[in-house]
Amino acid sequence: MIHVGFDIGGTNIKAGLVNDQGKIQVKRNVPFPRESYHACVRVMDELIKDMLNEAGLKTSDIADIGVAVPGAIDPTCSVVLDAYNLGFHDVPLKEAVSQLYPGIPVSLANDANAAALAELYGGAFDGKKTALLLTLGTGVGGGLILDGKMFNGGRGNGVEIGHMTLVYGGLECTCGNRGCFETVCAATWLVKQGKKEARLHPEGAVARKAGGKIDRVNAKTVIDCAKAGDTAALAIFNEYVDYLAQGIASIAAILDPEVVALGGGVSLAGDFLYEPLRKKVKEKVFFRCEYDIVPAVMGNDAGTIGAAMLRSSASHTA
Amino acid sequence: MIHVGFDIGGTNIKAGLVNDQGKIQVKRNVPFPRESYHACVRVMDELIKDMLNEAGLKTSDIADIGVAVPGAIDPTCSVVLDAYNLGFHDVPLKEAVSQLYPGIPVSLANDANAAALAELYGGAFDGKKTALLLTLGTGVGGGLILDGKMFNGGRGNGVEIGHMTLVYGGLECTCGNRGCFETVCAATWLVKQGKKEARLHPEGAVARKAGGKIDRVNAKTVIDCAKAGDTAALAIFNEYVDYLAQGIASIAAILDPEVVALGGGVSLAGDFLYEPLRKKVKEKVFFRCEYDIVPAVMGNDAGTIGAAMLRSSASHTA
Repeated sequence: MIHVGFDIGGTNIKAGLVNDQGKIQVKRNVPFPRESYHACVRVMDELIKDMLNEAGLKTSDIADIGVAVPGAIDPTCSVVLDAYNLGFHDVPLKEAVSQLYPGIPVSLANDANAAALAELYGGAFDGKKTALLLTLGTGVGGGLILDGKMFNGGRGNGVEIGHMTLVYGGLECTCGNRGCFETVCAATWLVKQGKKEARLHPEGAVARKAGGKIDRVNAKTVIDCAKAGDTAALAIFNEYVDYLAQGIASIAAILDPEVVALGGGVSLAGDFLYEPLRKKVKEKVFFRCEYDIVPAVMGNDAGTIGAAMLRSSASHTA
Repeated sequence: MIHVGFDIGGTNIKAGLVNDQGKIQVKRNVPFPRESYHACVRVMDELIKDMLNEAGLKTSDIADIGVAVPGAIDPTCSVVLDAYNLGFHDVPLKEAVSQLYPGIPVSLANDANAAALAELYGGAFDGKKTALLLTLGTGVGGGLILDGKMFNGGRGNGVEIGHMTLVYGGLECTCGNRGCFETVCAATWLVKQGKKEARLHPEGAVARKAGGKIDRVNAKTVIDCAKAGDTAALAIFNEYVDYLAQGIASIAAILDPEVVALGGGVSLAGDFLYEPLRKKVKEKVFFRCEYDIVPAVMGNDAGTIGAAMLRSSASHTA
């Protein structure tokens, strides 16, 4: 028996046949059809047939199908309420896929939750019961493993770690609130500060690194300049690490996780990020102990693997 | 079979015999002996014998013994690491009680955790799987029910909701960090603001309510003056509600609890508190839905009942 996983994104649909150990056997990556969700479901159907064919398997070999989407799912995990990047609003995706594969269980989840789940299968969360994934990108995404299982909120509304409050009365957030974790810990914050610095000091390291084009300043520009010892970039980076450490310490006071994994571009900064981060979290957290803060390891396959394991993991105990 | 519960406080030891439904059958409340933990264990032993006697039960009728203490417990739940109000440091309380009652399982927990647990038994958390208790007193205490069971942190360090960060860089906290939830949501904050107002306006409502004695201003003074429509007290109260709503919204973004129960003196303010609080949480929380925010109901018996149910609840599913 094999598990089918889909990671539906605004640009591509990733798909995979995944075994019981969470390892991908066959995978695909095709453009996301923007016409309608019906077109998306047709593509998913073709991908399943194509992958089964390559693996020499039949429909009857499918244990279950899981689908990860970048958006909000209803509490019964059947309907995509809003996935803006896909143009999906109130889409009964579970039912649509079920109709093509009657008798095969279909599960639906948010992609950040699925990515956290994937880390349980030989990744950063292997053997753990309480774990936190933070994805530092345009926003701060996240997923939570509690009691060895994916947690989707007590009422099924989901987990929005990027929207816990870190700075009461702080910067306005896209969600309408102020001072959310992601207003200061998304890569976006680094970019904004980097651009400000490049405008202020056109002869400075950040501006030079971006070839004098302020628009080209990204998070990596700032991190690279900080690594090279530029004072202005270092000040930005240190402030970022302080915010991130405060956020992790705040979550740790509530959940005391066994491991915190970081994903997204910023997470690739290596020891330059992780060493001061671990030190600061230890200084800030109520329990004054060192937390295991590590890079997420499942990378581009995380969504596909997590989706494939959705149903198995409901009874999975790490 | 009966469950024995103890709630050890710096002033009193409360004890009870509790049935499987979490109802107290017999209870006691005696002074806490300050000499040593050995004296405390002796008192506990006497209380058990005395209560069994009243109930017409024998030692062999005891299913288990649970003890709640106001402090930190080690991750194996055997040793009281630090309970400052009791003068307990590295006290092997589980072993000490076990030696008197060989063969009877003994459990140990933090009193805020035990209080949260008690609400599962016919209280505010009845039938719930994900629930949050916030105790608004000198600090902000709290307990978390996840998956229908008491949660004591992923690493067993405990749950310190009062020390999540709400105001990055804010007021100094007793824990050494800044801007913790409890720096702005403990009753202490209301008292401090009330005293400031009384000093500033000796003819104002707050100062008059306290009979002109600034030292007598407490949280209730401020709340009563706010209820009576005093502008200065209302401004303080509204700011307090805004902080509290922001804190609850922040936790809700992560845990999306089915119910939030408030304990401690401030929680007795009635609809004057709960109505604006529910409204503000709905405005602030990412999911924009109304959360069930209610008074805790187990009151003074919470610690005793929670302690008594510690072992049963480990397998309890709401």
